Amino acid sequence: MADSPNCDLKSLSPLQLFERVTEQGEKVRALKAGKAPKDEIDAAVRMLLSLKLSYKTTTGQDYQAGLPPTDLALINNGTTKEEDDDFVDPWTVQTSNAKGVDYDKLIVRFGSTKIDTDLINRIERAIGQKPHRFLRRGIFFSHRDMDQILHAYENKKSFYLYTGRGPSSQAMHVGHLIPFIFTKWLQEVFDVPLVIQLTDDEKYLWKDLTTEKAYEYAKENAKDIIACGFDVNKTFIFSDLDYLGSSMGFYKNIVKVQKHVTFNQVKGIFGFTDSDCIGKISFPAIQAAPSFSSSFPQIFNGKEDLQCLIPCAIDQDPYFRMTRDVAPRIGYPKPALLHSVFFPALQGAQTKMSASDPNSSIFLTDTPKQIKTKINKHAFSGGRDTIEEHRKYGGNCDVDVSFMYLTFFLEDDDRLEQLKQAYTSGELLTGELKKVLIETLQPMIAAHQERRKQVTDEVVKQFMTPRKLAFEF
Amino acid sequence: MADSPNCDLKSLSPLQLFERVTEQGEKVRALKAGKAPKDEIDAAVRMLLSLKLSYKTTTGQDYQAGLPPTDLALINNGTTKEEDDDFVDPWTVQTSNAKGVDYDKLIVRFGSTKIDTDLINRIERAIGQKPHRFLRRGIFFSHRDMDQILHAYENKKSFYLYTGRGPSSQAMHVGHLIPFIFTKWLQEVFDVPLVIQLTDDEKYLWKDLTTEKAYEYAKENAKDIIACGFDVNKTFIFSDLDYLGSSMGFYKNIVKVQKHVTFNQVKGIFGFTDSDCIGKISFPAIQAAPSFSSSFPQIFNGKEDLQCLIPCAIDQDPYFRMTRDVAPRIGYPKPALLHSVFFPALQGAQTKMSASDPNSSIFLTDTPKQIKTKINKHAFSGGRDTIEEHRKYGGNCDVDVSFMYLTFFLEDDDRLEQLKQAYTSGELLTGELKKVLIETLQPMIAAHQERRKQVTDEVVKQFMTPRKLAFEF
Repeated sequence: MADSPNCDLKSLSPLQLFERVTEQGEKVRALKAGKAPKDEIDAAVRMLLSLKLSYKTTTGQDYQAGLPPTDLALINNGTTKEEDDDFVDPWTVQTSNAKGVDYDKLIVRFGSTKIDTDLINRIERAIGQKPHRFLRRGIFFSHRDMDQILHAYENKKSFYLYTGRGPSSQAMHVGHLIPFIFTKWLQEVFDVPLVIQLTDDEKYLWKDLTTEKAYEYAKENAKDIIACGFDVNKTFIFSDLDYLGSSMGFYKNIVKVQKHVTFNQVKGIFGFTDSDCIGKISFPAIQAAPSFSSSFPQIFNGKEDLQCLIPCAIDQDPYFRMTRDVAPRIGYPKPALLHSVFFPALQGAQTKMSASDPNSSIFLTDTPKQIKTKINKHAFSGGRDTIEEHRKYGGNCDVDVSFMYLTFFLEDDDRLEQLKQAYTSGELLTGELKKVLIETLQPMIAAHQERRKQVTDEVVKQFMTPRKLAFEF
Repeated sequence: MADSPNCDLKSLSPLQLFERVTEQGEKVRALKAGKAPKDEIDAAVRMLLSLKLSYKTTTGQDYQAGLPPTDLALINNGTTKEEDDDFVDPWTVQTSNAKGVDYDKLIVRFGSTKIDTDLINRIERAIGQKPHRFLRRGIFFSHRDMDQILHAYENKKSFYLYTGRGPSSQAMHVGHLIPFIFTKWLQEVFDVPLVIQLTDDEKYLWKDLTTEKAYEYAKENAKDIIACGFDVNKTFIFSDLDYLGSSMGFYKNIVKVQKHVTFNQVKGIFGFTDSDCIGKISFPAIQAAPSFSSSFPQIFNGKEDLQCLIPCAIDQDPYFRMTRDVAPRIGYPKPALLHSVFFPALQGAQTKMSASDPNSSIFLTDTPKQIKTKINKHAFSGGRDTIEEHRKYGGNCDVDVSFMYLTFFLEDDDRLEQLKQAYTSGELLTGELKKVLIETLQPMIAAHQERRKQVTDEVVKQFMTPRKLAFEF
C-alpha cells in the first residue's frame, strides 16, 4: 500500500502511537461526516488499521479509544500478538482479508459465545422444525444467553423479539434483509411478538438530513420490512421521532439508561470524542431502551419483565453490551442476542455491502437486468484468470462473493454443496456460478417487489400504531 | 479562613493551578453527589473559590472548565484584575460578600443587559400599569432581548411565557415563589399563555431519587405553583417524564438542539466531566426545547414561530445562552429572558435559600410560629451589637436579611423607604424590623396555604393535561 505508515512508526513511543491512532480515527470520522469521496475514506481507514496494528505490535494491547497506554509491564513484555487488523464498530467494518472478518476472533474480542451444533440441535428440538439456513450455515454465528431463552421457552415462558434499522436512505439492499428474514422466521417458529425500531433520530444526528426526511425514510423502509411477511397482529414497527412522543414508558427507560452510563464509557465503547454532539453521546440509550418490555406498556399490556431476544448483525453488539451492563442496575433482565456475520460488498468481503456505494450493492428496487449486470460486472470472483487454469486448479469459494451470496439465499443444502464442489474442482466456471446466483436473486427480488406493492400507507400505519399485540404472556 | 490555600499557590504554574481548580471542582461535585455534610461542602466550595481567584490573579483570565491556559501573552501580561470570587452556576451560588453576588459584574460576565429605568418605563407604557415591585426594586435586574418582546407587543404581536422548576423535594420555600409571582404578574398584564416545565428527569439524573418519586414531587410542586393564582385556561404545567411521552413536538426539538451542541460546549458551559453520565450531558437540550413553540403543537395550535419570554433566576442563564446560540441554526427565534437576583438564605446573602438546609429556609408549609422563630433566630441582622451602638450608628440594610426579604414581599414603596431610613438611622431596632417581616410573611404564607388547599388532584390534572390554551395568535 502506498500509504502504509509503518516505515516511520517504529521510532514512536506507545503514547505517540496512541495519539496517531486517535488523530487518524478522528480524521476518518470527519471524512465520513463530511461525505468525502469513498476513495479518500477508504485510504484513511486503511491508514487507521495500519496504525492500530503498529500500536498493537508495540504495546501488545488493542487500541482502545480514550485509554492511553499506561501499563508499562504489558507494553514492555514484547510479545507481538498475531496480526489482527479487522476493524468493527457500528459504523465501519473493514478487514484486509478477502474471506472477511475473522469471526472467531471477534467472538473472543467481544466476549460472546459461538453458536455451536449443540445449541442448534437444542433450537431444533424446542421448535420441532429444521433450523433456518442462517443457523445451519453459521450466518448467525454468535449469541449471548440464547440458552436462557431456550430454557425459559422449554418451560413455557415466552419472550419478545427486538430488531431494528437505521433509515439512512430510501434505498435498502439485499444485505439489509438478513436480520429481517431471520427475525420473521424466529417470530413464526417461536410464535412471539416483535418490535422493530427505526432509528430516524440517529440518522438525523449522524447525517445531513432533516427530521422530516429521516422520518419519511423510516416509513419507506417500513414498507420493505413489512414486505418480508411479518404478522401485523404480532409486530409493532416504530420510528423513534414518532414513538418517543407517544409512549409513557420509552423515555423513562431511556433516562434510566442515561443515568447509568458515563461519557467515559461511551467514549470507550463507541469512540466518541469531545467534539461530538450531545445527541450522539446520549443516543446509545435510545437503542438500548427497547430491550426492556416496559418501554412498550401499551404493546405488552403493561408486562414489565418480559425477556427480550435481539437478532442483529454483530456490529450492533456494542450497544447491547452496554445495555446488558446497565440492565441489572435498573432492575431489568438482560436482553439475549443472536449475532449475524456482515453481508459482503459485491467487491469482496473486506467490507460490508453499503447503500452509499451503489456499485457495492444490489438494491431491493433493482430490475432483473440491473441485478444481472451488477453481478457479472462487480461480484468478486474466486475463480482463476483463464478457463484453463480454472479447470486445472479450481475456484476458491472462501473469497468468491457469488458463492457467499448463495450461502445466504439458496435454500437447498445439497445444491449448495454440489455447487461448492463443482466450483472448487474447476468443473463449474465463474460465469456459471454467477448465473446460478442471478437466477436465485432475480425471482427473490421480484417477489419482494411484488409484496412491497401490496404494502399501502394504510398498512404501514397499522404496523406503526401503538396497540396491544395479539399475545398473552 | 483556616482552609485558605493561597499560601502555597504562588509557586504553581498556570497549568498546575488549572489542574488544582479542576480537581477541586470535581471534589465539590463528588461531595454534593454523595450528599456530604453541608459544612464539608461549604469548605470545599470556599477552597474552590479561592483557587479560582488564584488562577485568575495568575493568568488574568477566568477559569473555564476544559480550557487549560495556553495563551501565554495573556498569562504573562501581569495585570491582576479586581478580585471577584462570586461563583454562580445552575447548581451553586456562593460569594464572600454579605451584600450578595455582585450583579453588575455578573451582567458583564454573562453578557446580558441591565434592566434600566428606560426599559421599566417602556414596560409601564406598554401595559398601562405600574410595573411590579420586582422590577421597581431591581429584583428582576437583567434581560436579553426584552426590548424586542416589547417592540413586537407594541405592534400587536403576542408571545408566550416559559418558566420552570426542578422538583427535588416536596418542600418549596418562599424563595421558590419569586419567578412564579413575577410570571403570574406578566401573564396578567400582557395577557399571554404560559408553559411551566417541571424537570423531574433532571432531578432523577442528579439526585438519589426514583423516576416515580421525582414525578410525585413534580405533581406536589405543581400544587404550590398553581396556588400562585395562574389562569388554567392560559397555563400548561408539564413534567418532562410525562410530557416527553405525550407530545409529537417536544422530542423532535430536543434532538435538534442535541445535534447542534457538542460535549466541549456543555463542558465549557456547565463544567461537566468525562465521568458524568450521558443523561446529565444531554439534559441541557431538554431545558432548552420549551423555548420553541413547536415543542407544544397541541398547546399553541401548531404555531411554530411564537416568540418566547423566560423569567428565571440568573443562575439558569447558562441553559438559555446555549439555547440562544442554537436557535437560529435550527430555524427558531431566540428566546428572550428576564433575570432575577437570588433569594438570600436566612443566614445571609453569601448563598441562596436552599430547601436542603432547613435552617436557611422559610417553607411554604411553615406555621406562623415556625416563621417567627426562624426569623428571630436565624435571619442575619445588619444591626449593631448593642442597642446603644445601634441607636448611635444605625443598622446596615445592605446586609440585613430581614430588610432584603421585605424588598421582595412588602408591596408599599413608601413604607419600605420609611423602614430603611428608620433602620439606617438607628431609630428602628433589629427586633422591630424582624417583627415587620414576620407580620408580612405570616399572612402571606397562610393565604398561600389556604389557596393550596383548594388545589385538588383534579385541578393539577387539568393544568397538566396537554390541550389548546385559550389564546388566539
